[in-house]
Amino acid sequence: MSTPYDLTANKPAPSNLAYVPFVSVDNMMRIIAEKGVETIIEGIAGYIEADFKRWDEFDKKPRIPAHAPEGVIELMPTSDGKTFGFKYVNGHPGNTRSGRQTVTGFGVLADLVNGYPVLFTEMTILTALRTAATSALVARYLAPKNARTMAIIGNGAQSDFQCLGFKQLVGITDIRAYDIDAAASQRLKRNLAGSGLNVTVCSSPEEAIEGADIVTTVTADKKSATILTDNMIGSGVHINAVGGDCPGKTELHKDILLRSDIFVELPEQTRIEGEIQQLAPDHKVTELWQVMRGEVPGRTSESQITLFDSVGFAIEDFAALCYLREILKTTAHFEKLDLLADPDDPRDLYGMVLRATVGQTNAA
Amino acid sequence: MSTPYDLTANKPAPSNLAYVPFVSVDNMMRIIAEKGVETIIEGIAGYIEADFKRWDEFDKKPRIPAHAPEGVIELMPTSDGKTFGFKYVNGHPGNTRSGRQTVTGFGVLADLVNGYPVLFTEMTILTALRTAATSALVARYLAPKNARTMAIIGNGAQSDFQCLGFKQLVGITDIRAYDIDAAASQRLKRNLAGSGLNVTVCSSPEEAIEGADIVTTVTADKKSATILTDNMIGSGVHINAVGGDCPGKTELHKDILLRSDIFVELPEQTRIEGEIQQLAPDHKVTELWQVMRGEVPGRTSESQITLFDSVGFAIEDFAALCYLREILKTTAHFEKLDLLADPDDPRDLYGMVLRATVGQTNAA
Repeated sequence: MSTPYDLTANKPAPSNLAYVPFVSVDNMMRIIAEKGVETIIEGIAGYIEADFKRWDEFDKKPRIPAHAPEGVIELMPTSDGKTFGFKYVNGHPGNTRSGRQTVTGFGVLADLVNGYPVLFTEMTILTALRTAATSALVARYLAPKNARTMAIIGNGAQSDFQCLGFKQLVGITDIRAYDIDAAASQRLKRNLAGSGLNVTVCSSPEEAIEGADIVTTVTADKKSATILTDNMIGSGVHINAVGGDCPGKTELHKDILLRSDIFVELPEQTRIEGEIQQLAPDHKVTELWQVMRGEVPGRTSESQITLFDSVGFAIEDFAALCYLREILKTTAHFEKLDLLADPDDPRDLYGMVLRATVGQTNAA
Repeated sequence: MSTPYDLTANKPAPSNLAYVPFVSVDNMMRIIAEKGVETIIEGIAGYIEADFKRWDEFDKKPRIPAHAPEGVIELMPTSDGKTFGFKYVNGHPGNTRSGRQTVTGFGVLADLVNGYPVLFTEMTILTALRTAATSALVARYLAPKNARTMAIIGNGAQSDFQCLGFKQLVGITDIRAYDIDAAASQRLKRNLAGSGLNVTVCSSPEEAIEGADIVTTVTADKKSATILTDNMIGSGVHINAVGGDCPGKTELHKDILLRSDIFVELPEQTRIEGEIQQLAPDHKVTELWQVMRGEVPGRTSESQITLFDSVGFAIEDFAALCYLREILKTTAHFEKLDLLADPDDPRDLYGMVLRATVGQTNAA
């Protein structure tokens, strides 16, 4: 077993300067196996909450997109002035036809003081974990007290993580699952069989939301859909709207929005990407960081409908990356990537190349 | 010896979907050893020229910076609508004090049609190669005919690559090297001993530029310096100003700029980062892509002073990444990185994690 790389060392041995810790998909799964998925979601949620509480320390850049007819690739950078992080993420709804993921990603964390990357990681799984962590964390502030039942509409790649996050952070015990593809709901039920969650597969959205304290929507189609209509939502419910997350992609009927108190990550971004793209640009929304800081209230009454219009924000990825960097200190499940040129003399980059070249020539 | 990964395959086997070709620093050096540094610089120059000629097809975003007192980390993305590329690069002038590189980087190329990365690579060495390729390519359009002698002021990490690029693309035979640190010039001379270039170490900038057809400035200090003053530059010279590349960092006296015809990559960027930050914001400059397309002339007389105010642009990195992807088809010097989650069923991301978890538990 290899010794964990000490990420806290101020002056690692020179040879270590070339290496960046890398968490592959395989190692991410090993880390989850080692630590437990709920523990990790809760750990990430803790980092997200702490970072939301120091909101003003962050550089809040908009995402940088590159568009094609088939989808989008985005870079999502942020920084707190000491550490820099970014995520590469794509969104290509047609990808499942070629056996690819709709959304994949990777992430990088770097030391802004010397510019060197300190972590490179797969971020397809980590994004699902941080999205679930954000949703469940927000629900701790907004869901009705003693919520036990969650409807989940859209039972794709994100849904399992959402359910496990709500179990761990909110205390959800019962899941009511609906998907237009019944096999997806069966898959979700099967995957959650050993989790302690009681999963009921439902044959309609109406059936799913029956008796639900929380309604999570997490469908994947890149279009304006109406997963929920106004008459389906009773008073007191918390809606966790995850799937409507880019221009032209919404899940909720506008009338639900008008009846709800809406909570968002970063208003400028959510007004473009979230459910509230359907509303006037000055429609009142509440920023979650203010709720977490206790500066404005979250849920104020039992009858209130609260809505988390989730689109995903760079600070959540930053928090997830920082959490991962921290737990790498306690696991051997990562590699060292030879990513950074590290000549003996920093001014002699070509000398390093040349000596490698000569070495090769001699060996040939 | 492993079989090169076929990057052109439209439908690789499902298991390959998880893997991204990765060129480590060690493999970059092996590739250079295998192909030859001049061949690679010339190859990259060909890609840069082709991409400059289709300038309007590119998305020309500004760099996205994150600043700290010690330096900057930048993301430099671009896309031609089919392929997306970006470079991560830092600039930390104080880094050499801790044995780190002032500038390091890595790069990613991705298929914009499905959003999947197709190449991940070190980019410290590759950036030095593409900077040399750009400089030498531009000199083919701007340097005086039959240029044989180049002065190079600043003999740090970039200088060797510059000299080799000018040898290969322009036909330079004689190098006159000056650095405030004489050891750096000796290092350069030593590294170029087997290259066929005749290197003269000079004790002042004035001595270095004596008889030079081309003057390359590539110093590293992050400040406004005056490496060249007006009286040092005679008529007919081509100046390749590489080192002045961010706000507050210039190398040339303003009067030289006023006597020169100035050629730039992207005016909006160069006016902020280049030598011309010293000039009025509407000072006439010529865009190199127009010169390469034959739409405007390059050098028009023997007495003209031409100046390439180089700052480095994302399209050059894109071209270098595309070139590297191409030559990976002919080498075994890369790895496959398990970067992308690839569940059997794209909608069953958690199932993949769960099965890995169960496998681990059973094995334990």
